[in-house]
Amino acid sequence: MCTEDIIVAPPMPREARIRIICTSLCQTDISFWKIQEGPLAIYPRILGHEAIGVVESVGEDVTEVAKGDVVLPTCIADCGECIDCKSSKSNLCSKFPFDMSPWMPRYATSRFTDLKGNIIHHFLSVSSFSEYAVVDIAHLTKIDTKVPPNRACLLSCGVSTGNSIQNLTESEVMRGFSTVAKRIERAISTINDGHNIWSHINARVGAAWRTAGVEPGSTVAIFGLGCVGLAVAEGARLCGATTIIGVDINPKKYEIGKKFGLTDFVHAEECANKSISQVIIEMTSGGADYCFECVGVTSLVHEAYASCRKGWGKTIVLGGHKSGSMLSLSIGKDFLSGKSLIGSLLGGIKPKSHVPILLKRYIDKELKLDEFVTHEVEFNDINKAFDLLVKGESIRCVIWMDK
Amino acid sequence: MCTEDIIVAPPMPREARIRIICTSLCQTDISFWKIQEGPLAIYPRILGHEAIGVVESVGEDVTEVAKGDVVLPTCIADCGECIDCKSSKSNLCSKFPFDMSPWMPRYATSRFTDLKGNIIHHFLSVSSFSEYAVVDIAHLTKIDTKVPPNRACLLSCGVSTGNSIQNLTESEVMRGFSTVAKRIERAISTINDGHNIWSHINARVGAAWRTAGVEPGSTVAIFGLGCVGLAVAEGARLCGATTIIGVDINPKKYEIGKKFGLTDFVHAEECANKSISQVIIEMTSGGADYCFECVGVTSLVHEAYASCRKGWGKTIVLGGHKSGSMLSLSIGKDFLSGKSLIGSLLGGIKPKSHVPILLKRYIDKELKLDEFVTHEVEFNDINKAFDLLVKGESIRCVIWMDK
Repeated sequence: MCTEDIIVAPPMPREARIRIICTSLCQTDISFWKIQEGPLAIYPRILGHEAIGVVESVGEDVTEVAKGDVVLPTCIADCGECIDCKSSKSNLCSKFPFDMSPWMPRYATSRFTDLKGNIIHHFLSVSSFSEYAVVDIAHLTKIDTKVPPNRACLLSCGVSTGNSIQNLTESEVMRGFSTVAKRIERAISTINDGHNIWSHINARVGAAWRTAGVEPGSTVAIFGLGCVGLAVAEGARLCGATTIIGVDINPKKYEIGKKFGLTDFVHAEECANKSISQVIIEMTSGGADYCFECVGVTSLVHEAYASCRKGWGKTIVLGGHKSGSMLSLSIGKDFLSGKSLIGSLLGGIKPKSHVPILLKRYIDKELKLDEFVTHEVEFNDINKAFDLLVKGESIRCVIWMDK
Repeated sequence: MCTEDIIVAPPMPREARIRIICTSLCQTDISFWKIQEGPLAIYPRILGHEAIGVVESVGEDVTEVAKGDVVLPTCIADCGECIDCKSSKSNLCSKFPFDMSPWMPRYATSRFTDLKGNIIHHFLSVSSFSEYAVVDIAHLTKIDTKVPPNRACLLSCGVSTGNSIQNLTESEVMRGFSTVAKRIERAISTINDGHNIWSHINARVGAAWRTAGVEPGSTVAIFGLGCVGLAVAEGARLCGATTIIGVDINPKKYEIGKKFGLTDFVHAEECANKSISQVIIEMTSGGADYCFECVGVTSLVHEAYASCRKGWGKTIVLGGHKSGSMLSLSIGKDFLSGKSLIGSLLGGIKPKSHVPILLKRYIDKELKLDEFVTHEVEFNDINKAFDLLVKGESIRCVIWMDK
């Protein structure tokens, strides 16, 4: 991946232009970066969506944030006006629905162009692999500056159309260089086959907290111990779960996972002729109260559903599954058992309401964030961040835009 | 169906022998009655499971009920000792799991024999098409006698192994005649093709109350307006739902359903080139908060799931589906939407805790029961009860054992 100069237009009404402080690399960026064809293969595009920034300027009719405010962009909107944003039950804004659109959400236009004036596309309403980005107010949460940016950025759930503008000015048109996802060249030689996984930490903490309602004393089983699953463990720990079982094919993940509250481990490929669900049912005397599928593999959803307890077990599907993946359930047998199957986007987190709560929990030393950051690099080393995550060596690599 | 004399053995420890006052006919009885082959074709067997009775005698170690107590048998157990019964979250007793066993739950033996000493099987731990039946204490709830029996019996959710004993004595061995489901002759000429539908009223009221947690102001869509769906409407009405949409192919059901709180109706076959879900999404400006599938048809589960609102919509599967019915969901598309899919057995009702609450609600004129009883017959007219339900002319027909 190369960096190049781009133009970042000034914000339109209800938008803000922000200077990215730091951004972290997530599997979603890699998943989109490797898309070769189909409707989601939109290039050139600026990826990146977990970030923290400072407001550089605001468009008309913006009162919520002002120049100098520290803000967290998020891929899901929180307009505060629609029925969903006004409801405590939903985090899916109706006014600006979550989608893979390559445009700004309010105007369906771009604020990015190359030096020849060609349009560069946005990504998940954020695009943080860039020194500057324009973000809609609905996608920005003003945050407490007490949290270090290389921790706070983990709580961003946005698609940050990453760009990094070199020559900062306050003029209306800003120039910089960015890591435009043009796929002109592939600096990373090995690409993983990860699906489109929404592995945002706050989403996962949120999944245990908001979507599942894990209560003290619960038993929890987590299928897949990447950043997704580890953050679920952390969320479950915060909710007071007493048994937190991790399922993975890599036993090293157990040691890592203990930091986040894992109490037990099941090696998915060494179950001694039993299915994973049989093992978990035995370990929990009947099944786990809550099962989280964090990989994006349909057979694991089946195992998770089979592992959760009859009567009250809930299975929460978090892994982003390949388009077209179908889940088949025996409707008579499975649905008389009183189990629930729950979908979730970003763990049910409402950015403007819940991100500040999670940040406070970090300040109060209740929520772990430090342990997720295994690496930090400068922006010109962004390829290293990709390499680490592709090889499975990092949990989160923070990329400093201007250290 | 014919009646015949049978022998009802005395209760074993932790059992009670009860004299059935009245019983009501449910689709489940018809479904089992028509089974011709396979593991569930167990004959001779005494059907019937919605009933009310008086304790005639008790076995050893019974302190919960005594001779003369009015009791409601239920097909699901509530032992009060296991983790499920002690939990407020489950109604699926672990000690005596719900099953289709033809035996008494605690000893796996029968209390019924014919006059030659041949075993007659039990049905869902109740068997109420009989003057007397032996029921395990875990399946009996002592109730307030203020509620008329021809109303209270609707709140029974048991498989009442119906038998009706003619020559009542208090001796250890009782003789009577019963409607043994031998399939010796078929007095009912037309058999519907109904699946195994658990259409117990309290289960359905319970579904809205216990399983779904319908709250005031909610929008509810009910797929299928048989007794199942109408009881869901009643439950939703009691929970304060303000929009209750019924979906059926028979528009007459709308008039009936209005008594139970229906506010709107969708004719399932006259949606003007739209799908049912499109119509409901338009009617509710985005989808219903709660959708209940009460028929047992897999395509309707899909429509129900599609009709419930993104962000918080819950689909509750109540219809008993044919063995082998599979539900297929697009795991990526469907599960990012924040919807839930919930299974339920008997609506999450815990008999000993919740039946008395529902009875009190009837006494306080909050819960409708009268409107469900469209017909009443004496036991020797039981075939008429079958005929009415098979033809779809009754909601509930109460059968008096000894009026």
